[in-house]
Amino acid sequence: MAEFSPGLEGVVAAETAVSEVDGEGGRLIYRGGYLIEDIVPVATYEETAYLLWHGELPTEKELDALRQQMAAARGLNRSARGTLDSMESATDPMDVLRTVVSAQGAARSLTKPSLDEAVALTAVFPTIVGAIARRRQGQEPVEPRVDLGHAANLLWMMEAKDPDPAKVHLVDTYLVLLADHGLNASTFAARVVASTGSDLTSCVVGAIAALKGPAHGGATLAARNMLDKIGSADNAERWLTDAHARKERFSGFGHRVYRTYDPRAKILREMAKTAAPELYATAARTEEVALRILHEAHPDRPNATNVDFWASVVLTGAGVPKELFTTLFATSRVAGWTAHVLESMADLRLIRPASKWIGPQPGRKPAVLAKR
Amino acid sequence: MAEFSPGLEGVVAAETAVSEVDGEGGRLIYRGGYLIEDIVPVATYEETAYLLWHGELPTEKELDALRQQMAAARGLNRSARGTLDSMESATDPMDVLRTVVSAQGAARSLTKPSLDEAVALTAVFPTIVGAIARRRQGQEPVEPRVDLGHAANLLWMMEAKDPDPAKVHLVDTYLVLLADHGLNASTFAARVVASTGSDLTSCVVGAIAALKGPAHGGATLAARNMLDKIGSADNAERWLTDAHARKERFSGFGHRVYRTYDPRAKILREMAKTAAPELYATAARTEEVALRILHEAHPDRPNATNVDFWASVVLTGAGVPKELFTTLFATSRVAGWTAHVLESMADLRLIRPASKWIGPQPGRKPAVLAKR
Repeated sequence: MAEFSPGLEGVVAAETAVSEVDGEGGRLIYRGGYLIEDIVPVATYEETAYLLWHGELPTEKELDALRQQMAAARGLNRSARGTLDSMESATDPMDVLRTVVSAQGAARSLTKPSLDEAVALTAVFPTIVGAIARRRQGQEPVEPRVDLGHAANLLWMMEAKDPDPAKVHLVDTYLVLLADHGLNASTFAARVVASTGSDLTSCVVGAIAALKGPAHGGATLAARNMLDKIGSADNAERWLTDAHARKERFSGFGHRVYRTYDPRAKILREMAKTAAPELYATAARTEEVALRILHEAHPDRPNATNVDFWASVVLTGAGVPKELFTTLFATSRVAGWTAHVLESMADLRLIRPASKWIGPQPGRKPAVLAKR
Repeated sequence: MAEFSPGLEGVVAAETAVSEVDGEGGRLIYRGGYLIEDIVPVATYEETAYLLWHGELPTEKELDALRQQMAAARGLNRSARGTLDSMESATDPMDVLRTVVSAQGAARSLTKPSLDEAVALTAVFPTIVGAIARRRQGQEPVEPRVDLGHAANLLWMMEAKDPDPAKVHLVDTYLVLLADHGLNASTFAARVVASTGSDLTSCVVGAIAALKGPAHGGATLAARNMLDKIGSADNAERWLTDAHARKERFSGFGHRVYRTYDPRAKILREMAKTAAPELYATAARTEEVALRILHEAHPDRPNATNVDFWASVVLTGAGVPKELFTTLFATSRVAGWTAHVLESMADLRLIRPASKWIGPQPGRKPAVLAKR
């Protein structure tokens, strides 16, 4: 039996052609062999999802068909509506998303994960996230619009007004950048669920459950909360020095796989300059000081800024309330989750690792039991 | 980097003192070092859950306190009720369970998994499963009863009549037997979700999602469906011979870990004799023939009867409709899921395995992108 590797670090748990994180080189490769920085300038979220599902970018005709299919799948069914209505508006957005997606995908009998289900699930996320946003503002959710693209419809449903094209571009780029990232914890959770022969909604619900954690999808909100506490560029030096002395972890720095600057963070950093100039100034100074302090404390450790740090600035610039950041992450990553599940169907094998027993060995029937 | 081990077979993904499956020896050890066959005659489900959570069996006083705490936590909250009401009664019971548990555990803010939450989640499963059963019969759900134990209340809520003590004993024993089983796929899913810092409901919802699959919790229903097709002891030889010729997999045989007779199957087999004499006769003959055919086809392969085969007969004897088998499994295993999550909190580390890239390496910016 193999050694115990905490966190399964370095253990290969899947072969995949959906995406690859080259941590040493600071590269993110999407399906087909495309570097993330080559995809971003040319592909919308719909095109990126198509790429992850099919392995090739869509032709114009294929893209039209996908757009129509997604627009038609944006509505909540009766069960999802009833579930949403039954939840308090102040409920954690990720808990609402987990529950309403579970309701939307509930079926009479078990079905094998399919591409059509992947498209439908991906299409409905903005409807749920938009409804959560509206309800948190004390407003009624609005109906999805079929004339808008994925990112634009998301903003429409959150704000109930014609979306600003500049903000649509920010959200769409964010969605492209976060759509897949190797065998991250939520994608792995989806593959574990899939491995039992469960349905696609179950896989996605399991992935939402995993994404919620602050060591994963919750990190974007944590980064923004830290920037809020710092408040201004002028305060960064003092705040970070104090936090470091308190042994507080800096949010938005470090990653399990990257040993250098996350290529997504690089793109988001550029976008952040114009997206949210004021928060950018605080963030840029924070980054400078944080990297210096971390480098002084751990000279051997790679401590590059991660995607969550700059994503928090760009999402702020797009007008997304910070409490919804993790649901935006889910809205993007669902394309990757479903692509991984569909890929795993080709050679499905139960993921059932071993454990190491650290409890006592049984002896003869213990006296404590004889007395019962 | 390590070799790729499909299904993570033999990869140690956790150290645990909650339970241990000794596949070679055919032993299941529960927390504290107790063999399953020593626990079953002396412990109810509540005592077993206490053992898995605390590491010791409860004193009489501790057991009383747990019973009261569980009885008080049996009600559905407003959100869970609304969610349940919004779902069609014919919905897959595991989809209803996944969704209503998600609603019941939804909260305003993230909380760290706690023992109290584990108790509350475990206590509410029979309420949901009972409601599913009643709604499938076209009847209104009944309210939980605080004067009954866990298994008795489950039967009360399914049947809305005073439960037969013999059937309560069958259900309670089943619940004790299935309460934990090493790092099975659903427990592993729960630990993956926990590893991101997510909440306990998210862990349990992820586990339900994984349990649903026919290669995991769904196997008990599959075993019963096979027995239904076989129909009688007399038909076993012919049906199994034909199925084997069609290369159909026999449900209820084989397990990833056990290399000999599953100790839980042994106990359930004994109980099945009187619990469901007619189905027992079919099952006993089916087992005899199936093991012979499998042994002839794969003389080197261990092909012992698994727990699902005999659980399907015992649950039938307890009057549980077969469509609800997987939800009964979940009602038992939730104690183990939560015990594992609580154990993992002591040294939480993100479970983030590696993947092997089998897609093309990126070259220069591809021409297909330049054209877009």
